[in-house]
Amino acid sequence: MQPAVRPFISFLTDFGPDAAAAICRGVMLGIARDAQIVDISHSIRKYAIRDGAYLLWITLSWLPVGVHVAVVDPGVGTARRPIGIQTARGDVLIGPDNGLLWPAAKVLGGALEARVLENRAWMLPKVSTTFHGRDIFSPMAANLAIGGSFKDVGPQVDLGSITALDFPEPVASEGQLDTSVVYIASFGNLHLAGGAGDLARALGPVEPGTRFTVELESLDGRPAHVEEAPFVRTFGETSVGTAMLYEDSFARLGYADNQGDAARRLGARLDQRIRIRRA
Amino acid sequence: MQPAVRPFISFLTDFGPDAAAAICRGVMLGIARDAQIVDISHSIRKYAIRDGAYLLWITLSWLPVGVHVAVVDPGVGTARRPIGIQTARGDVLIGPDNGLLWPAAKVLGGALEARVLENRAWMLPKVSTTFHGRDIFSPMAANLAIGGSFKDVGPQVDLGSITALDFPEPVASEGQLDTSVVYIASFGNLHLAGGAGDLARALGPVEPGTRFTVELESLDGRPAHVEEAPFVRTFGETSVGTAMLYEDSFARLGYADNQGDAARRLGARLDQRIRIRRA
Amino acid sequence: MQPAVRPFISFLTDFGPDAAAAICRGVMLGIARDAQIVDISHSIRKYAIRDGAYLLWITLSWLPVGVHVAVVDPGVGTARRPIGIQTARGDVLIGPDNGLLWPAAKVLGGALEARVLENRAWMLPKVSTTFHGRDIFSPMAANLAIGGSFKDVGPQVDLGSITALDFPEPVASEGQLDTSVVYIASFGNLHLAGGAGDLARALGPVEPGTRFTVELESLDGRPAHVEEAPFVRTFGETSVGTAMLYEDSFARLGYADNQGDAARRLGARLDQRIRIRRA
Repeated sequence: MQPAVRPFISFLTDFGPDAAAAICRGVMLGIARDAQIVDISHSIRKYAIRDGAYLLWITLSWLPVGVHVAVVDPGVGTARRPIGIQTARGDVLIGPDNGLLWPAAKVLGGALEARVLENRAWMLPKVSTTFHGRDIFSPMAANLAIGGSFKDVGPQVDLGSITALDFPEPVASEGQLDTSVVYIASFGNLHLAGGAGDLARALGPVEPGTRFTVELESLDGRPAHVEEAPFVRTFGETSVGTAMLYEDSFARLGYADNQGDAARRLGARLDQRIRIRRA
Repeated sequence: MQPAVRPFISFLTDFGPDAAAAICRGVMLGIARDAQIVDISHSIRKYAIRDGAYLLWITLSWLPVGVHVAVVDPGVGTARRPIGIQTARGDVLIGPDNGLLWPAAKVLGGALEARVLENRAWMLPKVSTTFHGRDIFSPMAANLAIGGSFKDVGPQVDLGSITALDFPEPVASEGQLDTSVVYIASFGNLHLAGGAGDLARALGPVEPGTRFTVELESLDGRPAHVEEAPFVRTFGETSVGTAMLYEDSFARLGYADNQGDAARRLGARLDQRIRIRRA
Repeated sequence: MQPAVRPFISFLTDFGPDAAAAICRGVMLGIARDAQIVDISHSIRKYAIRDGAYLLWITLSWLPVGVHVAVVDPGVGTARRPIGIQTARGDVLIGPDNGLLWPAAKVLGGALEARVLENRAWMLPKVSTTFHGRDIFSPMAANLAIGGSFKDVGPQVDLGSITALDFPEPVASEGQLDTSVVYIASFGNLHLAGGAGDLARALGPVEPGTRFTVELESLDGRPAHVEEAPFVRTFGETSVGTAMLYEDSFARLGYADNQGDAARRLGARLDQRIRIRRA
């Protein structure tokens, strides 16, 4: 990797508001003193690998080429491998082999090569069993950021051996699109499987104002919930509190209450199925 | 704008803990690779334009001269204009024309010139209808930060056409000062309209220990609430839990419980009226 | 202090999500424009000096040598002194003399010299009574970061006059180790007094899988609570939800629910006593 002006490192974890992220940052700066380290988020729901994978997936293509460290790692210290993935865009992804890095690699042009992080010279002298973010991932990333060769992180492994993680896809059938909740944003907007193109292919032309029937799967003993909502181009087209279907700024379907919290209102859950029909 | 050592950009939004702020930062760094980007807050109450305007207002004069991006933008994608304001101090404020930037411009020496952000070459190639922070505001700010001319953001507009936002002022009448809750800080301290000078002008000399009667407006069916509190110079002058009136470090009146959460105790609300009399 | 590539400043406060931390950062950058400022946390429980001291203590040795500013300061504006402590490692700690800096000084090789911050030229022109973070601590730190001499912050004071803060130590007696809750991490893991060595010295060899009886002190009218838990080397060795005793990545005893929140489940409190016996 050719370092540009300053080595670039992004950083995403489920570490929360304690000092763990700062400790990792300190370890990185101890090695790559001039690195530009950008926090993506340290508020990933604890242990929620798919939430972390989702945020990496929608974020990384907007960031400079660099080293991207991600740690959502319920299996830390067990047999799950610490890995690095080199992408076609020129990035290196660093983290646990649990699916977390998989979608991001695809959006960065695809994975070129994967390696297991085994170079002891690029780990801290003492490697704990519970904090690989500090002891393995951070020093590996920093050594790469200052110009170290990806080949030096450890032995190459087959790309097919890397743990996959794929987001659900919508299914179109006569007169309906079956989608589901892929991610719940911090303010209650539901990110759904598929894009506006899927909606149009399943249900015909979609214009601002086109109305749809949205049916949420019965869950936890609650009956299925059905409501109507317009497709909008932007939130301001509806009145405050109105539910609306839209294509979000990542070209994915979204379902939200204008200036409200749809997830809370609906008691929505990850992977809850949502069926959309023309109203 | 003459960039100093490194281009300086500050950044305030209501984006919360998801990755939206990091995406904007990535876009800025892609253009202004060496920019120094300082987050003011991304925890503004969602859609609360006045809360955002308040934090900008009390913060920006303490920051280096630079480009300041602020996004609290319930009208994103509608007819509200994306604007830039050049200040007498030498800053450029970038954000939606909804009042958010107005008080900050005043505290930075006043607005010299306003322009609508229309230069497509300084936006991302594809501009979404829901994420102007990423597609318009961030690349505009970064282009300015690397030395672009403010004249190039787009056509000049009359300063009188910019949406104003003014914080409430206290009203003195015989033996009382009528103020109100302008901002509720994260730990429950109430920021009130006016300063200690207003208190003194309305009620005579104010010394540490001077006691006042504080009456909170009846709200939501709750009766008006009256209590007594001393004016203090610093929190340590009262015992833990004591309510106190003080001049905060921005020369504004504050009302707080020492090491407690006055807003929660009192069920206080923004714009709730508070009448202060000498006890 | 010899500044390395860029002056390094770390920053820990209980300021929360409002703009106070950004204001301090702005003040520092106004003086030390190229400083590398790393936030440790601004989410310390409000006024919780010992929580702040704990996070500083476990964090600072992983950070580059530099100036470390810490503000958890319920006594701001009172007689408590603003101080600086020079450490054997070469750092300077800046903050209130209330115990906050004490454990960190010890872990950075010990305190060499302490001084009271009295140099008015290194404070903001107007010093408020409620925001010394902005008016005293930040400009002092920035002046040191750009190469100012520690001798210039103010007069030297006896190290013995600095407010001490020591974390509890465990007590071993026949067949039991009496420890206590020193810190509750954001996700409910309990950090206990002592390390695995204390456990072994009190109760004999400790291997992964060794089972212990853990008794939590009666508190708030709740009876003492007794449960059994294995000692584990890493979280993945137990099933989700299982309580476990372990040595954390700072060589301290921890008690946690695997992927759960032990503090909430147990209603645990700081300083609650915990007695460990072999099961």
